[in-house]
Amino acid sequence: AEVFDKELYQNNKLAGVVTGLAWTAVGGEILFIESSLSKGKGKLTLSGQLGDVMKESAMTALSYLKSNAEQLEIDHKTFENYDLHVHVPAGAVPKDGPSAGITMLTSLASIFTQRKVKNKLAMTGEITLRGKVLPVGGIKEKILAAKRAGIKEIILCNRNKKDIDEIDDRYLKGVSFHFVDTVDEVLEIALLPQKVQNALKFEFSQN
Amino acid sequence: AEVFDKELYQNNKLAGVVTGLAWTAVGGEILFIESSLSKGKGKLTLSGQLGDVMKESAMTALSYLKSNAEQLEIDHKTFENYDLHVHVPAGAVPKDGPSAGITMLTSLASIFTQRKVKNKLAMTGEITLRGKVLPVGGIKEKILAAKRAGIKEIILCNRNKKDIDEIDDRYLKGVSFHFVDTVDEVLEIALLPQKVQNALKFEFSQN
Amino acid sequence: AEVFDKELYQNNKLAGVVTGLAWTAVGGEILFIESSLSKGKGKLTLSGQLGDVMKESAMTALSYLKSNAEQLEIDHKTFENYDLHVHVPAGAVPKDGPSAGITMLTSLASIFTQRKVKNKLAMTGEITLRGKVLPVGGIKEKILAAKRAGIKEIILCNRNKKDIDEIDDRYLKGVSFHFVDTVDEVLEIALLPQKVQNALKFEFSQN
Amino acid sequence: AEVFDKELYQNNKLAGVVTGLAWTAVGGEILFIESSLSKGKGKLTLSGQLGDVMKESAMTALSYLKSNAEQLEIDHKTFENYDLHVHVPAGAVPKDGPSAGITMLTSLASIFTQRKVKNKLAMTGEITLRGKVLPVGGIKEKILAAKRAGIKEIILCNRNKKDIDEIDDRYLKGVSFHFVDTVDEVLEIALLPQKVQNALKFEFSQN
Amino acid sequence: AEVFDKELYQNNKLAGVVTGLAWTAVGGEILFIESSLSKGKGKLTLSGQLGDVMKESAMTALSYLKSNAEQLEIDHKTFENYDLHVHVPAGAVPKDGPSAGITMLTSLASIFTQRKVKNKLAMTGEITLRGKVLPVGGIKEKILAAKRAGIKEIILCNRNKKDIDEIDDRYLKGVSFHFVDTVDEVLEIALLPQKVQNALKFEFSQN
Amino acid sequence: AEVFDKELYQNNKLAGVVTGLAWTAVGGEILFIESSLSKGKGKLTLSGQLGDVMKESAMTALSYLKSNAEQLEIDHKTFENYDLHVHVPAGAVPKDGPSAGITMLTSLASIFTQRKVKNKLAMTGEITLRGKVLPVGGIKEKILAAKRAGIKEIILCNRNKKDIDEIDDRYLKGVSFHFVDTVDEVLEIALLPQKVQNALKFEFSQN
Ligand SMILES: [Ca+2]
Ligand SMILES: [Ca+2]
Ligand SMILES: [Ca+2]
Ligand SMILES: [Ca+2]
Ligand SMILES: [Ca+2]
Ligand SMILES: [Ca+2]
Ligand SMILES: [Ca+2]
Ligand SMILES: [Ca+2]
Ligand SMILES: [Ca+2]
Ligand SMILES: [Ca+2]
Ligand SMILES: [Ca+2]
Ligand SMILES: [Ca+2]
Repeated sequence: AEVFDKELYQNNKLAGVVTGLAWTAVGGEILFIESSLSKGKGKLTLSGQLGDVMKESAMTALSYLKSNAEQLEIDHKTFENYDLHVHVPAGAVPKDGPSAGITMLTSLASIFTQRKVKNKLAMTGEITLRGKVLPVGGIKEKILAAKRAGIKEIILCNRNKKDIDEIDDRYLKGVSFHFVDTVDEVLEIALLPQKVQNALKFEFSQN
Repeated sequence: AEVFDKELYQNNKLAGVVTGLAWTAVGGEILFIESSLSKGKGKLTLSGQLGDVMKESAMTALSYLKSNAEQLEIDHKTFENYDLHVHVPAGAVPKDGPSAGITMLTSLASIFTQRKVKNKLAMTGEITLRGKVLPVGGIKEKILAAKRAGIKEIILCNRNKKDIDEIDDRYLKGVSFHFVDTVDEVLEIALLPQKVQNALKFEFSQN
Repeated sequence: AEVFDKELYQNNKLAGVVTGLAWTAVGGEILFIESSLSKGKGKLTLSGQLGDVMKESAMTALSYLKSNAEQLEIDHKTFENYDLHVHVPAGAVPKDGPSAGITMLTSLASIFTQRKVKNKLAMTGEITLRGKVLPVGGIKEKILAAKRAGIKEIILCNRNKKDIDEIDDRYLKGVSFHFVDTVDEVLEIALLPQKVQNALKFEFSQN
Repeated sequence: AEVFDKELYQNNKLAGVVTGLAWTAVGGEILFIESSLSKGKGKLTLSGQLGDVMKESAMTALSYLKSNAEQLEIDHKTFENYDLHVHVPAGAVPKDGPSAGITMLTSLASIFTQRKVKNKLAMTGEITLRGKVLPVGGIKEKILAAKRAGIKEIILCNRNKKDIDEIDDRYLKGVSFHFVDTVDEVLEIALLPQKVQNALKFEFSQN
Repeated sequence: AEVFDKELYQNNKLAGVVTGLAWTAVGGEILFIESSLSKGKGKLTLSGQLGDVMKESAMTALSYLKSNAEQLEIDHKTFENYDLHVHVPAGAVPKDGPSAGITMLTSLASIFTQRKVKNKLAMTGEITLRGKVLPVGGIKEKILAAKRAGIKEIILCNRNKKDIDEIDDRYLKGVSFHFVDTVDEVLEIALLPQKVQNALKFEFSQN
Repeated sequence: AEVFDKELYQNNKLAGVVTGLAWTAVGGEILFIESSLSKGKGKLTLSGQLGDVMKESAMTALSYLKSNAEQLEIDHKTFENYDLHVHVPAGAVPKDGPSAGITMLTSLASIFTQRKVKNKLAMTGEITLRGKVLPVGGIKEKILAAKRAGIKEIILCNRNKKDIDEIDDRYLKGVSFHFVDTVDEVLEIALLPQKVQNALKFEFSQN
């Protein structure tokens, strides 16, 4: 019970839901990063039994987004007038590690812009505060899990290219890869220009 | 003493009281999620010796409700002007796990809308922040406990249907099942259109 | 030294002082729940080496009182303009468990209404947030302790009636029992209509 | 080094300094409760390596004082406009237990009224929130320590009278005793009507 | 996986990114201190699995900067109107010790002035609150790591000069050293007079 | 590495830097208490891996200073409009004990008055909240360390005079002693009437 369920990729109808790749003792799995906003005062809530490293990853993603809000056309008042919740199901499975960094950043960018996330896309990679993408482990297992779940495109750190080169080609069939060095490249690939249906219209109190 | 008392289902006169199903070492039990509101500033109090996973479940339910308040016709000012307390008796019994997720969500939806909860209904299932319902364990034991307590209808995750199919029919007699994939479906089944007697009339301070 | 002193019942001159019944390894004891209010901002202080369950019990009692303030004719501004302290002597004796629930609720109701508590009355029972009274353990020992201390009436949960039926009648002589299902019934029995001498006159700042 | 130094009683020139009696593995000792006030917002600071029970004792003393401020002619604004610090030297010696309760209460009453404390007086006894004084242990050792330090009068709980009766008279020579049941009696004995020299003049901001 | 990746020095295009030198069980490494600012209220966030000593180092660097803001021409309102995040990749590697002190100070000075950091420069040294630079350990390993990563200049505490004198000259070829006693000297060397491209323009709310 | 470096006394150019004496398993050492102020809201930050007793010592020193501000001609608004940071290098060395009390008090008094500290002066002694100075241990080792570091005058508690009397005179040559009972005496000796160069000019917001 304490492992991820065998999840399948679903769709990209909702803002803030992005597919990541996890690597546990029993193999690779996909996981979903889910973000939601509600009127509030800028509070951040994290749930899904996240460990310290993963919590810091979420805080780093949020700080990056805040200090680069202008280039994503996010009004800074949004951060002060809405509460953000980031949840990673399944709720009882402890999770840790930095490899969900770019997935979290993409989830936050999507919920704050209300832009759609590219269909059948997954990703794994650590972020740093200045926007670098760092390599992570378990690449082979993660790719197998992504294929199994119906994923067609995967974003990886350039420095993880060597891990792909070591995988037999037949395992890679049907999946294409994006190798990136920066967070900018991740968002350019992952965020579609159009907004989701019934996109949230942000309202700001006078303060 | 440190197990749930053999509780019986009671009635649906009060808003915010919803019947869940628990699964412990000594079998299944029903449990009650109780919510109350009092004038305040949006504080959340959780009690009943809830573990980390169950607390996060309550926070996820609340965030879901807040970001979907409009479709339930909840004025967002209610969240800011009232304090919410969620209690799960018996007070000395430690409880954990994500399976009370949809029960908590229904309890919150009922207390914030003051709508009645369907009579003799119980439920078990994890929620996620985007409103998915995930399967949980102990289905057989939970159903036996529900019957014993006088429950007539049970809401389960679609992905728990296979657990029902494995139970001998005679154990299922007298109980009907609703299999759901989303929180929307849960609330459509569980929340009656009418309000409870002496429904709370929300008042907002000027702020 | 680390057990309750052999206390005797005293009197009902002060608001907020209610007699409960405790059950420890060395037998039953009476204990006093003491509440006090002072001008403030709604802060709650608990003392007396209370364990987690007992602290949650106090918070549940307070939430119940707040959401049912109107029927006790308590002005809700009182909760925001006064700080509440609940203490359970002896200060060095660790205490836990839910059985002081109704005693705490009665103490809070008395201090916030300034109504007198019935003379020579003790009680034991768990409360839930919706106002149910749940049964507790150690009934025989508690009753012996109550008699020894000079108590004449005892409030118990209806579901504890069976424990009384098993006690030899000679031990019950001189004590009468009230069996209840709800908090409403507790307060109807325990709170006298008249206020204490020199009852506190609540004053509210303009806010 | 980790035991109280052999302290001597000094004088009663300063408000807020009161002599208590401690009982440790190596015998009795006197200790000083020191309180100070500085302009602030009602913050309470406790220091001197106080354990949980002793901290709760200080909080109970403060709550008692606040809810009985009027009869000591303390303006309630003082509590909101000054920060209170209570320190118990020696700073490195861990201290715990409820027996400093009445000493702390007297220290607080003295600092908030700026009234002088009676000369060569010591005391030991637990307080409760409603103002009862409860008996404490180590009476014999404490009395010997008090005599050694130059103390002439000692306040004890009435229920500690029996401990005195068991002590050989020659050890009691030169010390007189006050046996009390309530906090009111303690303050009547301990607080002199006159203020200390250069008594603090309380000033309140407009709020 | 739980050691620093073999990082290479990159460039000095971004404000707030400064190269430090770490010394672990497996040898020396370079590390990056990354700082970012976003509109806020003066909150400080630290991430990168920093230990207590390293967190205190960051707080000391920030206090130094604040109390010496004028000489770096930093408007004090910046501290109150922006939130600061300091991150040290890699996110999963626990880090501790005081030797990143001057690197952190330089990172903070750069992000708050938006001035460029000198190219191919690294540094290691503890800071104190009054601006002294203290010597640190692992100098030989750190220098080898710096050379390997492409560093050309290194700032060290004067009291670490003796460690350099003991290293064979061929290991020092291609790197020049700055020996300093104070934080002033560090900043004079490390901060270039020009600002970074697209330097942040600070805006202050009226308060 | 985890012991104090052999520090030398430096100078008295900066306000808030005062020389204390520490006593560890490997002998005596001098240490520096460093205080700094920056515009803020009265926050206190302590760093240098200080233990509980030493932190309480700093809080006691600050409370003493606040409640005796008038006699040092410190405007009380300074406490509310500036943040205080107290750091004790070396940053990685755990420190504890009450013996830095008078050193901390002197450091605070110097930073808040901007008065110079006497040259080549060191001190060791516990403080209490009412301004008493208490004796401390390790006197012999501390004096040897002070001499080695270039100290010429040392302040000690009167009750530590007996420790000096036991030291062979040749070890005391070149150092003179001040024996004190109160904090007043410490400050009279340690604080010079003139301010430091470029003394901070305090500015207060209107509140
Ligand atoms: Ca950790
Ligand atoms: Ca990882
Ligand atoms: Ca946990
Ligand atoms: Ca479960
Ligand atoms: Ca617990
Ligand atoms: Ca119990
Ligand atoms: Ca404890
Ligand atoms: Ca005691
Ligand atoms: Ca530590
Ligand atoms: Ca180091
Ligand atoms: Ca401690
Ligand atoms: Ca010491």
